[in-house]
Amino acid sequence: MSETWLETLITPDPQAGYDLAVKLARVAVKLTQGDARVRDELRKDYEANADSLIAVSAVVATHFQTVAAANNYWR
Amino acid sequence: MSETWLETLITPDPQAGYDLAVKLARVAVKLTQGDARVRDELRKDYEANADSLIAVSAVVATHFQTVAAANNYWR
Amino acid sequence: MSETWLETLITPDPQAGYDLAVKLARVAVKLTQGDARVRDELRKDYEANADSLIAVSAVVATHFQTVAAANNYWR
Amino acid sequence: MSETWLETLITPDPQAGYDLAVKLARVAVKLTQGDARVRDELRKDYEANADSLIAVSAVVATHFQTVAAANNYWR
Amino acid sequence: MSETWLETLITPDPQAGYDLAVKLARVAVKLTQGDARVRDELRKDYEANADSLIAVSAVVATHFQTVAAANNYWR
Amino acid sequence: MSETWLETLITPDPQAGYDLAVKLARVAVKLTQGDARVRDELRKDYEANADSLIAVSAVVATHFQTVAAANNYWR
Repeated sequence: MSETWLETLITPDPQAGYDLAVKLARVAVKLTQGDARVRDELRKDYEANADSLIAVSAVVATHFQTVAAANNYWR
Repeated sequence: MSETWLETLITPDPQAGYDLAVKLARVAVKLTQGDARVRDELRKDYEANADSLIAVSAVVATHFQTVAAANNYWR
Repeated sequence: MSETWLETLITPDPQAGYDLAVKLARVAVKLTQGDARVRDELRKDYEANADSLIAVSAVVATHFQTVAAANNYWR
Repeated sequence: MSETWLETLITPDPQAGYDLAVKLARVAVKLTQGDARVRDELRKDYEANADSLIAVSAVVATHFQTVAAANNYWR
Repeated sequence: MSETWLETLITPDPQAGYDLAVKLARVAVKLTQGDARVRDELRKDYEANADSLIAVSAVVATHFQTVAAANNYWR
Repeated sequence: MSETWLETLITPDPQAGYDLAVKLARVAVKLTQGDARVRDELRKDYEANADSLIAVSAVVATHFQTVAAANNYWR
């Protein structure tokens, strides 16, 4: 992925930080499986599977922890 | 999710911080599976499955770690 | 769960901190599956399953990390 | 478990810290499954299962991170 | 792997830090399974499996947390 | 394991730190499954299984985070 997609971890507020965490979680999948059609097919699997959705949430949680620390918890 | 749902990580006490962590864990599922009916169906799966409930608890634990640090552990 | 169950992360010693971590791990399950009878049924599943018990231990480990930091590692 | 098993996170060196992390990982299982005979039976399962052993190692890794921070990395 | 592959955790920006995290996640697989043909075969498995891709993303998330802290979050 | 295998978390550079993280991930398996022949048998399982290899990488990632912090990220 040569295009620029991540310039900073600094966000105006926690919600924007959470959205960034969701994006950070998704990009690793994109970098590992470059074919958008395959990813779309796979989405049908995990978005209708409770354990897969929980696992996605776990990845977002780790990234949100990183983004929150980067923003000094928006204190 | 354009509506504002996360304004701050600061909570009055640890219990409110824990409740925020539970909310943070759930929103990623909502952002990944936007259809409330599907989510309700899936809830029947994971709320009656020990391993799924443990996995939910793991996500809450990571978010609680973030919220606790944000609140300087309510010291 | 409106009743107060978490007033502080500060504990007198590491063992009390570990017990708090175990409690923190369990409450997320209680908040997700409110029916005590269902939880009791599920307990029969995970307490006799090695991988489930290891997964419980993983959640406790994350919470213990939080509680230990909150208590400045009881140094 | 009323008996005292965890008095401090401070250890003389990293190896003693790692041993403590292994102990911390095991106690949560003991607190969740109090019957030693059941635990011994379950041990036969996970000690001969690659994924279970990797999962145990993951719990030890989180606890070791906590113990290492408690000891300021034995610097 | 005697060749030098990791000289620093410092990167010019977050995106380069994320790429490093992806590399850090992959090297452990390479060090565990040294046979490139086997790894290529396995790639066909996980790159078409939603849960595997999510698990890869989780490993990247932990490494990205480390690299971000190393770079003081590129503040 | 009475022999001394872990004297310090301090390493000359990140790559040596990563190697230490791999070692830290493996020792917990060795301490849990003391029989080298069983471990060798199990290695055939996980080194040819994508999800197992990803899980190994996850454990290395947590330990690398610890070792990197111990070395102040080799800054």
